[in-house]
Amino acid sequence: MSYSSRLLQDSVESLSQLPGIGKKSALRIALFLIGKQKEQIQDGFLEPLQKMVAGIKFCNECHNLSDEQICTICTQRKLKSETICVVESVRDVMAIEETGQYKGLYHVLGGVISPLDGVAPEDLNIDDLILRATHPDIKEIIMAVSPTIEGETTIYYISKKLKDTDVNISLLARGISFGGELEYADEVTLGRSIATRTPYTISQL
Amino acid sequence: MSYSSRLLQDSVESLSQLPGIGKKSALRIALFLIGKQKEQIQDGFLEPLQKMVAGIKFCNECHNLSDEQICTICTQRKLKSETICVVESVRDVMAIEETGQYKGLYHVLGGVISPLDGVAPEDLNIDDLILRATHPDIKEIIMAVSPTIEGETTIYYISKKLKDTDVNISLLARGISFGGELEYADEVTLGRSIATRTPYTISQL
Repeated sequence: MSYSSRLLQDSVESLSQLPGIGKKSALRIALFLIGKQKEQIQDGFLEPLQKMVAGIKFCNECHNLSDEQICTICTQRKLKSETICVVESVRDVMAIEETGQYKGLYHVLGGVISPLDGVAPEDLNIDDLILRATHPDIKEIIMAVSPTIEGETTIYYISKKLKDTDVNISLLARGISFGGELEYADEVTLGRSIATRTPYTISQL
Repeated sequence: MSYSSRLLQDSVESLSQLPGIGKKSALRIALFLIGKQKEQIQDGFLEPLQKMVAGIKFCNECHNLSDEQICTICTQRKLKSETICVVESVRDVMAIEETGQYKGLYHVLGGVISPLDGVAPEDLNIDDLILRATHPDIKEIIMAVSPTIEGETTIYYISKKLKDTDVNISLLARGISFGGELEYADEVTLGRSIATRTPYTISQL
């Protein structure tokens, strides 16, 4: 691209570093911003980002994103919860919250154990989890980690660490998706869902 | 989406106002920014945007984006150019510059005449163009405006205004695309490209 303005070029280059934004989208965004009032961009676009970057924290308890030292989920649910749902990332917390099916606590690991990517157990928030799991109120740890090799390794590592405690460890149910077509389910999922079939009850549907 | 942080939510909302960015992309970008060092975001991302918003100008001559009062194209080519290429937007200047086929001046209209969208001739940089076209150095005006009804209207309006001057008005050649398949060309384009067929010369290819 040939830019008539150095300022525009710098902005396009910085915008195109963002995930999912190529040079063309970046140019489109830059031209969109140029078309707006200066105050509008500062107050409506740059300021929220600056505030977020300056003020956002990770919850001291569950490592979820938070505006305070302790996140709203931990604050609201700490006294009445017996379960901790272990997830990889903040996005997984949002996805599970979105379902409305879970009202317990979370614990964000910050990834999964992956020697190939150089992620060791010490790089994740695992020690914290072990500490939280030993609290007498906690009865169950739900492992809501991706069913990949790295995810399975992480589950195995954590469950070994929790061996001597009283907590129950559970996994998310695995099987075919609701609303999905059988023929499009992958072989491993379909095979395992036959092997781990569940008894049919009228109330289940 | 349920956000655990108000700061994150505000950022996602401001990012999702950008063209081509939905809520999911905005969240992805916000989490990407959170994962970076604070200084990195300020210097590498926010600062270029702030500088651009504060410093970018429109060239006094051609209304192209510029860092100075007069853009680099006007500065470099003013003395030796006899043509002005009239385009709708800054992006069209970039597209034509990208071809490397044109070394003349530009004039950015800022849109096309479109009564339905409330764009009147007075809203565009047309008066300026008429003034520039009367300069004795200028011999030709190339109308590089989109071949839509609004574009044609704009071309007609400008050519009527230039009726009494000595400049020649030319249009971009219209016809089938290079590398395109005939069967996929639309009827109007294909029909017109037969009607306005050009004599074949060996050197043309």
